[in-house]
Amino acid sequence: VILTLTLNAALDITYDVDALVPRSTHRVRHTRQRAGGKGVNVASVLSRLGVPVTASGFLGGRTGVDISADLDARALPQAFFRCAGESRRTVNVVSAGDGDATIFNEPGPVITNGEWSALVDGIPELFVRSRAAVLVLSGSLPPGVPEDAFARLVALARDHGVTSVVDAGGAALRQAVGAHPDVVKPNLAELEASTGQVDAVIGAQELQRWGALDVVVSCGPDGAVVLPRDGGELRARLRKPLAGNPTGAGDAMVAALAAGLDREPAARGEGVSPAPRDGRSGAWDWSTAIRNAVAWSAAAVLQPLAGDVDPDDVTRLAAEVELEQR
Amino acid sequence: VILTLTLNAALDITYDVDALVPRSTHRVRHTRQRAGGKGVNVASVLSRLGVPVTASGFLGGRTGVDISADLDARALPQAFFRCAGESRRTVNVVSAGDGDATIFNEPGPVITNGEWSALVDGIPELFVRSRAAVLVLSGSLPPGVPEDAFARLVALARDHGVTSVVDAGGAALRQAVGAHPDVVKPNLAELEASTGQVDAVIGAQELQRWGALDVVVSCGPDGAVVLPRDGGELRARLRKPLAGNPTGAGDAMVAALAAGLDREPAARGEGVSPAPRDGRSGAWDWSTAIRNAVAWSAAAVLQPLAGDVDPDDVTRLAAEVELEQR
Repeated sequence: VILTLTLNAALDITYDVDALVPRSTHRVRHTRQRAGGKGVNVASVLSRLGVPVTASGFLGGRTGVDISADLDARALPQAFFRCAGESRRTVNVVSAGDGDATIFNEPGPVITNGEWSALVDGIPELFVRSRAAVLVLSGSLPPGVPEDAFARLVALARDHGVTSVVDAGGAALRQAVGAHPDVVKPNLAELEASTGQVDAVIGAQELQRWGALDVVVSCGPDGAVVLPRDGGELRARLRKPLAGNPTGAGDAMVAALAAGLDREPAARGEGVSPAPRDGRSGAWDWSTAIRNAVAWSAAAVLQPLAGDVDPDDVTRLAAEVELEQR
Repeated sequence: VILTLTLNAALDITYDVDALVPRSTHRVRHTRQRAGGKGVNVASVLSRLGVPVTASGFLGGRTGVDISADLDARALPQAFFRCAGESRRTVNVVSAGDGDATIFNEPGPVITNGEWSALVDGIPELFVRSRAAVLVLSGSLPPGVPEDAFARLVALARDHGVTSVVDAGGAALRQAVGAHPDVVKPNLAELEASTGQVDAVIGAQELQRWGALDVVVSCGPDGAVVLPRDGGELRARLRKPLAGNPTGAGDAMVAALAAGLDREPAARGEGVSPAPRDGRSGAWDWSTAIRNAVAWSAAAVLQPLAGDVDPDDVTRLAAEVELEQR
């Protein structure tokens, strides 16, 4: 089972308008809203593809209640920790004319020391209760959470025999790799923000010097580059890049990587080909893992909302992935 | 006691951003939210000035719960009717640089025939329960409510000895005046949308030809013009117009008019000088009423949020109002 942790979960609200005109009043044509935040999107993709998952993190206030209700409505198992502050909303204004999006992100709750300690203290019990084999750490740290939060959680996971995947950038990624997470998956912008390197391979090698094991860099329409912990380099991309909505593509890639790492993948898991993994040595079948990662990510591009993929797209697109070993 | 009816109540959310840039992602610096909609703002101003009031209308869904909770938190008496649809939110994005506002209004619930009938059937009992002497009808009609809604409610009020005040524009105002509401208060734009007249006096006379009794036209920084039912014309304005936030100024003016009409004004009512009113003939002291109306409206301009006034501002500004009788 996979446990995703979203420390700054959100209620994502989408407004369709005719056109965004600053300083005017807009009639919203259509409103959609759903639980979001990167870890929640990862959980949503896994659930959609029949992979057992539990979503966790912090929730607070009335927006926290709305997020929780949406997860219930989607039958997505959840085990969140409470915070006194109000969970954030994001408002995504989409213009009918050009499909352009203008986004407003609320700041989110300030997490107290006590709330952070309660989460750290409660995670081991949650590993047991949710029978977690993989911990996914995604997204931004809310104010009040220490900068080494992901490092601390990666260490906790290892102490309990749980594999860890980190999707972060900047300082949070730099801190996390020091604790040797099993997989990190920055995108190119996050990798540059962390390492100052614009080249995926050079940046990934820098992360490995700092302690990272397997590094997967998502490169948008150019697919992904893997630098396994035991050397080598593997690239994967779609034969033809897809047009669509890139929001949530990275989350779907993380979902695929986590599904591959899960030692008990669901029988119903679509597009999941769990490769035998030789203990913690990292000697597993990266070509299958990265093929799935690129296919899930591409399937997410075809969906209007983050956290969604069509299982048929996943199956079809996996056959369209080209691999290049170096 | 005053009863305000807001058929399309809202949760008004304000986002402070550095600057609104279309097609980009904004970090919201500060979030505020409160119950809104024109009738709710009228009730809020009355409550702030110690005038007994009950807020009613339709509420539905989770946003309806949020609106209700905010009114409770402000100790504002409420008696709403339920609807199955979701009450609307409005998102008001304010740029720090220039204070300019960009507004997104959700469409609001569709009111079913059954829900509308339940409200009409329940209003007489609500008049009794809330001891209403004045009914205030403000704001837009949600989809599903018949266009003659205000006319129907004005007639109901008269049947029960309740004075009516209507703040509306366009077709809703045209329909309402046919039922002879005691006071209508369009602003210049609403008056033009209803009558096609750009001149306040000519437009007001047109409304009176259609059935309106007393007509008060709010003219922004130019104050207000009254055409009493028994003839004459009275203008009132501040000696020096104020700079500030005009949102909610019209609602504060309606609140002042309703407070003056209420036959049992609260002892604590600030700036309320109830004039003796000679039955339904309209021969009451319009100079006091319109002085208060302009003062309350100006006090609202000094507040950042609609529905708020400072009692000290009301007292101070009432002395700054100039009257002109024609």
